[in-house]
Amino acid sequence: MADAPSDPKPPAAEAGAAGAEGAAPSKKAAKKAEAKAKKEAEKARKAAEREAAAAAAKAASGAAEDLAKENYGDITPTTKVDAERVHLKDIGDEHLDKVIKLRAWIQNSRLQGAKMAFVELREERDWSIQGVMVANNEGKPVSRQMVKWTGSLTLESFVLVEAKVVKPLEPVKSCKVSDYELHISKCYLVAPGPPVLGMSLAVANRAVSSFEDEEHHAADAGKDVEEVKDGVAALSVDSIAHASMSTHLNNPAMHKRAPVQQAIADVRMTVRKLFSDYLESKGFVQFEPPCLIGASSEGGANVFSMPYFDKAAFLAQSPQFYKQFEIAGGRKRVYCIGPVFRAENSNTPRHMTEFTGLDLEMEIEDHYHEVLHMLEGVLLYIFRGLEEKCAKQIELIRTVYPSEDFLLPEPGKEVRLTFAEGQKLLREEGPEEFRNVSDDEDMSTPQEKALGALIREKYKTDFYVLDKFPESARPFYTIEDPENPKVTNAYDFFMRGQEILSGGQRIHVPTELEARLRKKGIDPTSPGIKEYVDVFRSVGVPPHGGGGIGLDRVVAWYLNLPSVHLASYYPRTPKRLLP
Amino acid sequence: MADAPSDPKPPAAEAGAAGAEGAAPSKKAAKKAEAKAKKEAEKARKAAEREAAAAAAKAASGAAEDLAKENYGDITPTTKVDAERVHLKDIGDEHLDKVIKLRAWIQNSRLQGAKMAFVELREERDWSIQGVMVANNEGKPVSRQMVKWTGSLTLESFVLVEAKVVKPLEPVKSCKVSDYELHISKCYLVAPGPPVLGMSLAVANRAVSSFEDEEHHAADAGKDVEEVKDGVAALSVDSIAHASMSTHLNNPAMHKRAPVQQAIADVRMTVRKLFSDYLESKGFVQFEPPCLIGASSEGGANVFSMPYFDKAAFLAQSPQFYKQFEIAGGRKRVYCIGPVFRAENSNTPRHMTEFTGLDLEMEIEDHYHEVLHMLEGVLLYIFRGLEEKCAKQIELIRTVYPSEDFLLPEPGKEVRLTFAEGQKLLREEGPEEFRNVSDDEDMSTPQEKALGALIREKYKTDFYVLDKFPESARPFYTIEDPENPKVTNAYDFFMRGQEILSGGQRIHVPTELEARLRKKGIDPTSPGIKEYVDVFRSVGVPPHGGGGIGLDRVVAWYLNLPSVHLASYYPRTPKRLLP
Repeated sequence: MADAPSDPKPPAAEAGAAGAEGAAPSKKAAKKAEAKAKKEAEKARKAAEREAAAAAAKAASGAAEDLAKENYGDITPTTKVDAERVHLKDIGDEHLDKVIKLRAWIQNSRLQGAKMAFVELREERDWSIQGVMVANNEGKPVSRQMVKWTGSLTLESFVLVEAKVVKPLEPVKSCKVSDYELHISKCYLVAPGPPVLGMSLAVANRAVSSFEDEEHHAADAGKDVEEVKDGVAALSVDSIAHASMSTHLNNPAMHKRAPVQQAIADVRMTVRKLFSDYLESKGFVQFEPPCLIGASSEGGANVFSMPYFDKAAFLAQSPQFYKQFEIAGGRKRVYCIGPVFRAENSNTPRHMTEFTGLDLEMEIEDHYHEVLHMLEGVLLYIFRGLEEKCAKQIELIRTVYPSEDFLLPEPGKEVRLTFAEGQKLLREEGPEEFRNVSDDEDMSTPQEKALGALIREKYKTDFYVLDKFPESARPFYTIEDPENPKVTNAYDFFMRGQEILSGGQRIHVPTELEARLRKKGIDPTSPGIKEYVDVFRSVGVPPHGGGGIGLDRVVAWYLNLPSVHLASYYPRTPKRLLP
Repeated sequence: MADAPSDPKPPAAEAGAAGAEGAAPSKKAAKKAEAKAKKEAEKARKAAEREAAAAAAKAASGAAEDLAKENYGDITPTTKVDAERVHLKDIGDEHLDKVIKLRAWIQNSRLQGAKMAFVELREERDWSIQGVMVANNEGKPVSRQMVKWTGSLTLESFVLVEAKVVKPLEPVKSCKVSDYELHISKCYLVAPGPPVLGMSLAVANRAVSSFEDEEHHAADAGKDVEEVKDGVAALSVDSIAHASMSTHLNNPAMHKRAPVQQAIADVRMTVRKLFSDYLESKGFVQFEPPCLIGASSEGGANVFSMPYFDKAAFLAQSPQFYKQFEIAGGRKRVYCIGPVFRAENSNTPRHMTEFTGLDLEMEIEDHYHEVLHMLEGVLLYIFRGLEEKCAKQIELIRTVYPSEDFLLPEPGKEVRLTFAEGQKLLREEGPEEFRNVSDDEDMSTPQEKALGALIREKYKTDFYVLDKFPESARPFYTIEDPENPKVTNAYDFFMRGQEILSGGQRIHVPTELEARLRKKGIDPTSPGIKEYVDVFRSVGVPPHGGGGIGLDRVVAWYLNLPSVHLASYYPRTPKRLLP
């Protein structure tokens, strides 16, 4: 690739900056002007500050020999600090008056006169401590030049320091480690922060103000950061600004450094782990389905396709067929965790084009409810496990995204309605517009939400099951209720009125599978479908069923987040694929 | 989709059948003819057998009222067996003379006269037991008709049986449960096996004969199975036939039912688990990188691309950038396990287009060898863990795919050569053709294998590290050795002379990153690259490094399998995407 000069001021940059302010859409114009003025002022102030600091440093260095010059500056391959490495979370009285070594980010800093600097150091997550640097008359180990240099380090710079652990006069409320402070004797810059942050940590740790600017074209991603290079403060640190989702995602490092995002990530990974732990304790084994498949077997329009050598390949919309192949292959109980893909042009807080599926499939011995109970069991285990293992994280997240407790049914009183019972409840007790809902048609999202509210009121639970979905609402591989072929042995699970799981019993006899395919208007010999049916023709496959859970939704709805995009590591939407 | 009549005899079917025989390529023509003759004979024999059985059954049913008719036949929704459900692996003396219930596959069956049938039942993996059914003079609970019907059930049919547990006269050597047998009193067909299996379990459990017919077009997949429908025995059960990889993959259920494949899958999942366990014990947290990305950032030709709404999307070739974003985002140590994609038209036993990466990334405190030691630590933990946790599986796999013990270095004596030392060894002690290998050029696969043999002989280990790769052989994000910019702080790990891991320290300072990009001829403002560098511009990022391990290769080379395709659940190659 050839180098090309970058356009210093692309036309779309203004729009990006406005988005970064996170103003409410109705007041956008006014806020935009205000913000612009504020930014100009801030820009001027910062520039003046930098000039003054540079001049002062120059004057100081001319004025006297710097006896501390070995104790600070940019790190080099020969820089060495021999003191004991202590992590902030381990710091205690045993370290008092000892010299320690620390690697940390500068979270805040201010000069007090010419001889003293206060530096807030953050090591990991929200583990922070106050550092103090004082120049003495001898000029070593700390000189005035060293204090100036340290005080001029930009926020989120990464430094290596040597310091003595001391008791502060009074607890340092602004830091998590409040009972100790560090008297810094050496400070080396390992990696500099930018002149101005694209988004401050304080803003990153506040609720996202809006999601609609995620409508921007992905090619605009990173524009806000570009602006920062030009010295424009996209967001003032001390205002109570909130940033848009777009600003968050264009500043991934700061977005991720926010304690609220680290707490959400903890919850997500805990859900994954609880899912595995429970299933393994029940005899399930993990397997890995492919993402690339040779046919768009599961549904027409919503599948990504791509050239694949002399053929075409498609991205899996679910591991459905492959879970069943594992059962056909002699495994009794399998699960998998991995990415699935939907080429749906839906720009809503509930949709992504790539998300993580938690899937299971198991042999049925006597009744399809064996699977339903397993799915219910794993989800209740997850919810109860989160209450225990992520109590602190949930508390922290609620300070940013408030939510009511997620109500669980009492053991033995799980709520399982049939689809028809759910519709009846809606007709009889739901809002006016749902007085005529039918038992034969799938529910709409507003219907689901209304039913969720009714169930919460009536049964005091945010988690429930709708069983026996109508045949017309389920895919071809779903088995019919032998007593009533208008409905199926299939169900959805809900959290706070939103669907998070689809499951049910599958057809395991190839002749029935073929008949159903034809009934649904699908050619049993079409690519992908043929290979699927062939597996059931090739061996006797026991009755089986399973379900698929959307991990992102479980996390988002459990925490009552405004969008699944906040629950994902790198949300993929029709408008965003970078970074 | 509209239904279309299926072509009963596609022209390519003959080729598929020859492939299924698994003959060695040199003797292909002769074997083909022989096989064809054999098949015709077999076909005739089976047809005659079926006719005879049907006639006999008809005669028998006409001859007398069937008093046992409630005790056998196709299962219905009202079929009930009330006996205790016992799993074969749990069967013991406490069950003697008790009536139990079992769900199992018919692994073998034979009639002995008109009154007796022997049925080998397999419940899970290789857990099998002998079942005996005897018609008595009363005609119940077992009638002659029932014996005939049971004896005519096809292999791999799935049945529900009621039976009494008894001691056999002598141990049943052909079954894993050899100290007990079952006297069957009820037998219901849950799901029928096919008239003839596409591949027998015995063949599925033998070594794959050849991989080259994986060159067939994926559209041919399933042809062997189609043939089976027509009653052609692709493979005779009692011959010592081996099947080709193509036949295995076209018969996924039988391929997976083979104990050797279940054992390989166990080893694979154990590697995954040991990887996570070790890293979590060292403070690593898991995260999820995306598969869909907005730019082909990591390399030109080998990337899959696809239309993505009004843009293009690419499939991740590694989680490299995203691992680094997590470090930039304030995590100290991260790992991920997931699919990665390479659009490489390589049809070799070492390549797949989709495979599973085990990746980690961590902050470096003092030296890049911290990462090297971590990677070495996790792999040694995996190898030692396999010896302990998968001893039985490894033993079983070796009966099919023989291998020498995987030699490990003694603790503290890990073999770490520099790339230059490796090349020197090759020049001085390797084969003639490698007398002139250079320290500045990457190694070829034959060079790697030759070096592996030298190292095994010299150091008695199959696992070793080559450090300090030449700059020219590594990607732009690799940091140079500060003392010698011709080489890098980067390494490869090897198993039995084959690369399984690439790792090293990354550049964490944005100005250095830009300079290196330009040096390598890459435009730092190009899509994907810009967003990557922006992250390092947006915050101070600590020094860090990591590595990526190919799970499929670790499994395949540890077990000395002839191909990574045997280690994968659903191998994806340029020629195969189905099933």
